[in-house]
Amino acid sequence: MTEAIGNSSFDVITDEEYQRQCAVYEPFTDAVRRLIEAGIRTGVDAETLSGAQTEIEAIVDRLLAVQKPVPSIVRLADTGRPLSYANPTVGLRNAIAPPMGITHHDGPDGRCWAEFDLGLPYEGPPGLVHGGICALVLDQLLGEVASAGLTKPHFTGTITVRYLRGTPLGRVRAEAWVDRTDGVKTFARGTLSDAEGVTVEADGIFIRPQWARG
Amino acid sequence: MTEAIGNSSFDVITDEEYQRQCAVYEPFTDAVRRLIEAGIRTGVDAETLSGAQTEIEAIVDRLLAVQKPVPSIVRLADTGRPLSYANPTVGLRNAIAPPMGITHHDGPDGRCWAEFDLGLPYEGPPGLVHGGICALVLDQLLGEVASAGLTKPHFTGTITVRYLRGTPLGRVRAEAWVDRTDGVKTFARGTLSDAEGVTVEADGIFIRPQWARG
Repeated sequence: MTEAIGNSSFDVITDEEYQRQCAVYEPFTDAVRRLIEAGIRTGVDAETLSGAQTEIEAIVDRLLAVQKPVPSIVRLADTGRPLSYANPTVGLRNAIAPPMGITHHDGPDGRCWAEFDLGLPYEGPPGLVHGGICALVLDQLLGEVASAGLTKPHFTGTITVRYLRGTPLGRVRAEAWVDRTDGVKTFARGTLSDAEGVTVEADGIFIRPQWARG
Repeated sequence: MTEAIGNSSFDVITDEEYQRQCAVYEPFTDAVRRLIEAGIRTGVDAETLSGAQTEIEAIVDRLLAVQKPVPSIVRLADTGRPLSYANPTVGLRNAIAPPMGITHHDGPDGRCWAEFDLGLPYEGPPGLVHGGICALVLDQLLGEVASAGLTKPHFTGTITVRYLRGTPLGRVRAEAWVDRTDGVKTFARGTLSDAEGVTVEADGIFIRPQWARG
């Protein structure tokens, strides 16, 4: 089933199909995540690394021998929320994504939050999360609250990120909510925290596109 | 050789050793990048995907059987500039990095730029680069100019990113320069562009840490 929302169309899948896809793709994507980190940590010699590279290239060839068009987003039948495959923060099939498992509250400010780990592949200064990775995860969360869990289209106008202190690698909590709305503009705020408290704050202005103002 | 800069220490490597490391790690990391994208694009059945997963897990085990401490950054003897292994924008050994190959000019505003491809693993809205990925690459570039190519320590205070329009997936150009300095603060600016012009603008305020003000 395909549903048209604004100028995009989405496939709609059942919860059962969603669970099936998670069971297939999550463990594979986790294995690729571990490979990304192993590529940074490994101390094997050049010959062993080259052998691993040859095997990886053979796997890539086999995987790409069968391709189907990948919908950027499908919508879940039970919640109406979208499922992303490629998104680099939450994509089910993207090993770049930490992934953030985002929980949406149903309160009036559309609050959502996620707790997840940011390990060595997300490092900027030694032992700390890259500032741009903090911006990436907050951009995603602010965009989700501004668009009511991606059910109402909004484009990011401006995002401002304030770094209060470094965010240590490891477990983080990210949170966002709608601060206020003014006509076609939605003002969203968010924070990134470690166990000691807030490390990064973000403010974003999101704009409802012309075609969705009807 | 280890050189102390502020409260961090760096290994220093010769240009010859740098070239050797690039020859070993670049093709391996490129293979992992292709695997990340293949994981999103593949249409193979669950059994074939599971077989690939088992092979990837075996490669991970082999790579992690030998580990050496990975320095976050080593400094290149000829330019004094750091080489990063793990950084998610420029790290030599991080498949999350596009990678950005950053060119530094020697002019007074410390201008630097990079042209590189952002493909499917960096997608946000359909066909467009994720806004947070735009913020990530601009954060890196602004940080590099504010710290004079990472030779002078600065921490990001605030970064503001303005989205003028969507950035199509594909070739992008990112550029940054120092706008002005005021005491311990450096004001940096940057842009992301496609072939048609600027898509995203960024402003950042960077602060020289207490221990480096001496």
